[in-house]
This record gives sequence, C-alpha cells and structure tokens, in this order.
Amino acid sequence: PKIVTLPGDGIGPEVTAAAVAVLREVAPDLTFEEHLLGGAAIEATGEPLPQATQDALKPADAVLLGTVGGPQNSPWNSLPRHLRPESGLLQLRKLLGVYANLRPVRVQPGLEHLSPLKPELARGVDILIVRELLGGIYFDQDRKIDGDTAYNTMRYTTPEVERIAKVAFWAAEQRRGRVTSVDKANVLEVSELWRRDVTALKERDYPRLHLNHEYVDSVAMLIVSDPSRYDVIVTENLFGDILSDLAAVIPGSLGLMPSASLGDGPGLFEPIHGSAPDIAGQGVANPAAAIMSAAMLLRHGLELPHAAAKIDGAVSQALKSHPTRDIGGTASTEAFTDAVLRALG
Amino acid sequence: PKIVTLPGDGIGPEVTAAAVAVLREVAPDLTFEEHLLGGAAIEATGEPLPQATQDALKPADAVLLGTVGGPQNSPWNSLPRHLRPESGLLQLRKLLGVYANLRPVRVQPGLEHLSPLKPELARGVDILIVRELLGGIYFDQDRKIDGDTAYNTMRYTTPEVERIAKVAFWAAEQRRGRVTSVDKANVLEVSELWRRDVTALKERDYPRLHLNHEYVDSVAMLIVSDPSRYDVIVTENLFGDILSDLAAVIPGSLGLMPSASLGDGPGLFEPIHGSAPDIAGQGVANPAAAIMSAAMLLRHGLELPHAAAKIDGAVSQALKSHPTRDIGGTASTEAFTDAVLRALG
Ligand SMILES: CC(C)[C@H](C(=O)O)[C@@H](O)C(=O)O
Ligand SMILES: CC(C)[C@H](C(=O)O)[C@@H](O)C(=O)O
Repeated sequence: PKIVTLPGDGIGPEVTAAAVAVLREVAPDLTFEEHLLGGAAIEATGEPLPQATQDALKPADAVLLGTVGGPQNSPWNSLPRHLRPESGLLQLRKLLGVYANLRPVRVQPGLEHLSPLKPELARGVDILIVRELLGGIYFDQDRKIDGDTAYNTMRYTTPEVERIAKVAFWAAEQRRGRVTSVDKANVLEVSELWRRDVTALKERDYPRLHLNHEYVDSVAMLIVSDPSRYDVIVTENLFGDILSDLAAVIPGSLGLMPSASLGDGPGLFEPIHGSAPDIAGQGVANPAAAIMSAAMLLRHGLELPHAAAKIDGAVSQALKSHPTRDIGGTASTEAFTDAVLRALG
Repeated sequence: PKIVTLPGDGIGPEVTAAAVAVLREVAPDLTFEEHLLGGAAIEATGEPLPQATQDALKPADAVLLGTVGGPQNSPWNSLPRHLRPESGLLQLRKLLGVYANLRPVRVQPGLEHLSPLKPELARGVDILIVRELLGGIYFDQDRKIDGDTAYNTMRYTTPEVERIAKVAFWAAEQRRGRVTSVDKANVLEVSELWRRDVTALKERDYPRLHLNHEYVDSVAMLIVSDPSRYDVIVTENLFGDILSDLAAVIPGSLGLMPSASLGDGPGLFEPIHGSAPDIAGQGVANPAAAIMSAAMLLRHGLELPHAAAKIDGAVSQALKSHPTRDIGGTASTEAFTDAVLRALG
C-alpha cells in the first residue's frame, strides 16, 4: 500500500518522520511518498494545496498529515483566505471526501495527573467524537462579506446527516453502545432536521443502541463536569470543531491526541495539535499523537487492527518510560520514538 | 422604580422570591409586579410570552427573571417551536432589545474545591463574558426546514458588532483592561467582518485597552486549561451561548452564576441555571445566583452600585456559613436567604 505523507509546517516534519519510522517497523511493505501542503507549499508554489500534491493523492491508500500553519504574525495569515495554509487543509478534506472526523479522547491510566480536571473526573474517560467534516457552515457556498454586512449559512441535507450518523452508530457497536447526538434544536431549524434524521436512522437500523440528544451548550458543560457520561458523541462540523478541541484538553496534552478523517476513498490521519512554531526544529516535540494517528491509519485506513494495537501499546509504554516535555518529562522526540520502536521490536 | 418579576418554571418561583426578599431589604422603595412567562404562561394562556406580560414590561425599570422550561419529556417540548417555553425567552430578549448578555465567572475565594478543575487552575479566575444576544444565527429570518434540507443563517452587520464591542470595551475599562474577541475568522466571512469591526473600533476609540483575537475552538480549550489568561471575552450569539455555559462550570455550581442582559430600555436579570424540575418545590434550591442577579439589577439596571456590592458581600458570607446542597452543604433555600438577610442587616 502507498502512503502519501504531508509533513506541513512547524513541528509537522519532525513528528511525521517519527510516525513513518514506526509504520516502517510494523508494516514493512508500505511505501511512502512525501508532498507539500500548507505554508511549506505556499513558500514553494504560492498555493497551499498545489496541483502536484493533488495528483499524488489519487493513487494513495491513505494520507498521513503533520501540521499546518505558521505563527500568529506569519505573512501567510494576511493572504486572501483561499491562499492561506488552513485553506489547504479544508481543500484537502474536500478533495479526499473525508466526511467523518474521528477523535478519540482517552485518558491513559496512570496519566490522570496531567489533566486540568480533578483526577477523579479524568480517570477512565474514553470518548469518541464523530464530527461531520464536509458540510454545514464550513463549506456552504451561500456566504458573503460585503461592506457592512456578512453572512454564512449552516445547511445540512438528510443524506449528509445519515452518512455521518451511520459512522457514529457503527463506532458505538464496537464500543459501549451509546451515542449522544449534539445539536441546538431549541433554536435552529438545521438542528431540527439533524435530530429528526438521526432519530429515524437509529429506529430503523440500530434498535439495540442507546441514543440521546443534548444541546451543544449543555454538552460543553457536561464534558468538563462529568466526562465519563459520554461514549460516542456525534455532531455537525462547527459544533464538532469546538467540542472536539474542548474534549482534547482532558488528557492533559494535545501531544497525545490523534485523529482520523474517513470517507469513501483514502483516509486522512493527523495529530490534532498545531504546528507549534515556537519549538519547531528543536527535536523536543511529542510525536505520540502523530504515531497514534499512524495507528489509526493502520486500523481504519488499511484494516490492520493488530498492527495498530501493537503501536498503541508501545506508545503507552513509552509515555511512561520516556515522557516528553509537554507531559512533564525530558525525553526528546528521537528518544521517545526510539522507546516506541524498542517496545515494538 | 418598578421591577417586573417573571418567576417562570421549576425552581424559578423559589429563587425569585429569595431575590425579591433581598431587594426589599436593601432598596425599600422598589415596587414589584409579577407576571407569567414560559411553561407557566403556556399553561395559563397557551403562549409562552402572553400579551399581558408584554404590556407590563413597557413601564418597567428592570426585569427579574427566574427560570424557564420543563423536564426533557414535558409536553411543552412537543409544541411548535414558537410556542415552547424557550421561545418565550427569545421573544422576551427581542422585545426588551437586550443585545448585551453579561456573564461574570468568578471563583469565590475559599470555594476553589468546588471546581471540576484542579484548584490551582480555578483559583482567582475572574472572567466577564459579553455575549451578543439579539443577532447572528438565533434571530436571522433567513431560515428554513423543508423536506430533506434545512438551513440557518449567521449574519452580522457593522452596527450590531460595534454596539456589543462597545459594551465589552466599557467593561474592560472598569476591570483589567484586556478584551479577547472570539471568532472563527479562519473559516467564516461573518467572523471576518466581526474581527475587522472590533479592531477598527478599538483603534479609533479605545487605544489604551489591550485587544486580541482568538478562534472559538482554541478558546474552548484555553478556558479550561488556562482560565486565568482571560479578563473580558466578547463574542457573537452562538459562540457566546457555548462558551458562557462552558465557563460557568468553573466555579463548580451553576447555582452561583448570575447574568445581566442589557439594551437601551429595561434590563433583564436572571440566574443562568435551569429550572431543575427534579428539585422544584422542595425548598432546597440554591438562590445565590438569583440573588446575585438581583445585585446586577441594582448595579446595571438602576445604577445603585453600593447596594449591589452589599448584596454580593452578604452572599459570599452566606455561601460559607450556610452552604446549600449543590455546594456540599445542607442549608435550605430559606436558611440561605435568611443568612443573606442577616449579613445585610
Ligand atoms: C484550521 C481549521 C480550519 C480547522 C477547522 O476548524 O476545521 C481546525 O480547527 C481543525 O479542527 O482541524
Ligand atoms: C434556552 C436557550 C434558547 C438559551 C439560548 O441558547 O440562548 C439558553 O441556552 C441561554 O443561554 O440562555
């Protein structure tokens, strides 16, 4: 199988290199091809998702992404919106058709003390957030800024709601069987459709699962004050953006948070942390999230669940034996990666 | 001055009675007139904001609201949306023209242990969230559900952005001088307008304040992992709904969280907690948030800052001497209220 890597900006290249080293160890028949995305691509070609990268994606079996974007004062951020690094990421999602963003939030046993929450609240948290990634207010064409007024449109159709809800129900079947669908149905028509369609699908095809509906403002509270109540959370693009980042702080370091974005073609796998320009190139970034994203690539992208589980186990060990700076240790990116490779070998 | 009280549903009547008792104590020249809103109004008249209530609001100097809404399985929730309890609240905001929702989030010294956050993170938190309350996706007319598709529109105009930003800057002038404006300008045109207009207003009229811009997903993380970094947060209606509820969990009980909604006419003052139907009528609800909302009424609605400060001081004392159930004590609503009245007297 062929993996396209898009190391991107900041610490992206360092953590992607670590993830590739781990993939080579557990799946020697993979081939890798590196391409440009984000700021790096803007520097080289003027565009955040150049044609050469687009062409390379077609024959790929999966895509491994680093991180995208510069510091706040980067000149990239003053470009017209469609030429900025983030735009490359949005275009990439669209091009790959990855409508389902999976964000597991798991507190590693023994690492509860890293959480900003009290340890008794953080202990045992194991949530999967399923975010719709190609619809809603992010991509709707009906949008404009014009003089003194501007608007965007949050739109969903039944087929869009059903395909993401299916992913959530499928995931719940392999987990604890409980899905919380998040909306703002007390205010928004688009949420009324969402709630209606999720409910109908569940009643038709998933009678054994448990489904409940909660408002986005209430979930923002409960995810902090009682995170253990959640198993699978499914929601639309913008609410998912906010809630998945919120939930990501529970384990205590963004350096521990992987993600998978799935559609009908090759999937996109990436750590959720940013490009951290302040520590880029110093060899101190925590590559755990990138390595765990590589494990998700094996599990969801290539159907190699055993190899994926081996990586997750090795990462857990290395987090204890060789903690990086962000989790209170001193291990370098290289030392951590070596520890993962040894635990695998 | 004339205060219209709208006790509403669930524990609303109990906590409103407590707040009225406290107001009578510190401001004997106030007059009170009680009216129907929400489920209580639906039962009596079929409408969540009856005409009689609307008429009573016109000559009012301020409005003191309890709580609105029934249990999740209440028949009120199956009514057409414009006849549900929440709709009464939205119509009330619109009718009063209260475009600025002020939500102070303060961790009371000595009560850090109540927070879901580690005490070292909760200590000293003092944030004011300024939420735009009459615009954006909540009220825009361009909205529809029709067969297999539905949409809502998030729209803002420059005058709407400027009037809420002014409130935030005015508040920052009496506080630590720092405003964080929250948007999703990397994705939304409506956020681009928001950011542009907030920036221009600050440069024109508030050169001495400090303004920065952050993305809503990032704020959702930082409000939990580093809440002390914030002074005043200003944002649009939907982001404000989510972030203000999120921030409200930091002090550890919604029973401690007041709010003020201000416009050009009478202001609306209410605790942010829900109607808690499970404990309604038992005399155990914590009236602190309602009493603190009454203090905000004196401060912002009637320009009586000294009386307001007296109430806040008395509430702080009572929270320590007579804690209610939600904060780990046993005091009843009445015992707590008596403790506040004694501390005042
Ligand atoms: C960079 C930005 C466009 C993106 C988003 O909002 O989707 C990011 O926040 C994310 O969640 O991957
Ligand atoms: C009840 C609901 C319509 C309301 C809102 O979303 O504004 C509530 O969540 C609030 O924040 O006061």
